[in-house]
Amino acid sequence: MLHNRPRDLQETSEPNRVLQAIRQIVSEGLLPSDGRLPTERHLAAELEAGRASVRRALDTLEAEGLIWRKQGKGTFAGQPPDPTEELAAQIASDVDPLSAMEARLCIEPALADLCARRATADDVARLRKLAERTHDAEGSDSAELWDGALHRAIARIAGNRLMLTAFTLIDEVRMGDDWQEKRHRARTPETRAFYDAQHQKIIEAIDARNGPAAANAMRKHLETLFDNLRKSMEDRP
Amino acid sequence: MLHNRPRDLQETSEPNRVLQAIRQIVSEGLLPSDGRLPTERHLAAELEAGRASVRRALDTLEAEGLIWRKQGKGTFAGQPPDPTEELAAQIASDVDPLSAMEARLCIEPALADLCARRATADDVARLRKLAERTHDAEGSDSAELWDGALHRAIARIAGNRLMLTAFTLIDEVRMGDDWQEKRHRARTPETRAFYDAQHQKIIEAIDARNGPAAANAMRKHLETLFDNLRKSMEDRP
Repeated sequence: MLHNRPRDLQETSEPNRVLQAIRQIVSEGLLPSDGRLPTERHLAAELEAGRASVRRALDTLEAEGLIWRKQGKGTFAGQPPDPTEELAAQIASDVDPLSAMEARLCIEPALADLCARRATADDVARLRKLAERTHDAEGSDSAELWDGALHRAIARIAGNRLMLTAFTLIDEVRMGDDWQEKRHRARTPETRAFYDAQHQKIIEAIDARNGPAAANAMRKHLETLFDNLRKSMEDRP
Repeated sequence: MLHNRPRDLQETSEPNRVLQAIRQIVSEGLLPSDGRLPTERHLAAELEAGRASVRRALDTLEAEGLIWRKQGKGTFAGQPPDPTEELAAQIASDVDPLSAMEARLCIEPALADLCARRATADDVARLRKLAERTHDAEGSDSAELWDGALHRAIARIAGNRLMLTAFTLIDEVRMGDDWQEKRHRARTPETRAFYDAQHQKIIEAIDARNGPAAANAMRKHLETLFDNLRKSMEDRP
């Protein structure tokens, strides 16, 4: 393709010519199987261009999400792999539903505390909306999705990147397909009404910007979930 | 190398011959830059052997830690990358020392609680040893290493894989070189004596298998560290 470069590409400015050429290399998949691009120096030589033009083109393509840079490794086509997902996949086999619930009980009360200290009025309105959706949901599947979104929103509003990553890690492991049935069995109309009331208490405490009360309400909620999960696992081992 | 195969390799059994051939390919680095091995089918054809022999050889080399398999991606020479490290590197730039300390305050009291509930007599003896080493250490660097080992041991004894991973993630981010100076400034002879006494209290509570007391002692310790870190950052902004 590069040998057969159309005339108009030759007449455009160097930065534009370089950008279009590299875009072509990436989009036509003219790369090794690991998607790694040639180095800046190689690209500059190959395209008979300055390194500044090459760097600018790479910046543009990175901003567009077509390539990504891995420190010390080079530049690659496509999106960076999500390391949280990879880590979750790696440890999933060492985690069972009860120990995942134990981990939630370790971190979610602390997240609710931080959330209460940092939530804006908009944040609280969003939490109320999610609690409503959880309440109105028809069927366990849908209720679980909204319920998950509510807990995730609390973790996000807490505003600590490391804690959000820890939350996401636990969330990804516990959403593993194997456990869905166990969770669904623990979600009956009676438990759902109870969980809804507990969600309300958590949100009230957050709205009152009362961190310790939010942490306590979250702890009680998770302990209820923990008990019900244990029961549902004992019923049908 | 394969063309020049020594005579004795030809006379040995097929599984052994295949194992030695693949070991040679891996150890002599006759692989593309990403370290990916040819597929089982390719190896079988190239080595004129059955796929069962190839699979057995790969199992052996994997058990020896010379190669690793990545689901859906193939087989690679060397050790699998540590996804916790990759994740820590990815989020490190979004984390500052104070928010890392906030994350520690969220999870380490819960880890101390679990640790107190699960520690064996041997575990407690190991914690005492690490506290002693921290106390006896000459210089901030050495004290910090032993101190870190003590906190890590508590996280490990807590016995929850997800929480240990969350702890490791925070630990890797906060050990980033940029912050070392700030941490060292917060470690004077006076603060060290105080931290040692706090470590003792944590270990006493763990030894008494008193989860809530261990969590409280850990919380107080981390709050002291948090205060001193804040002060040392204010002194020289």
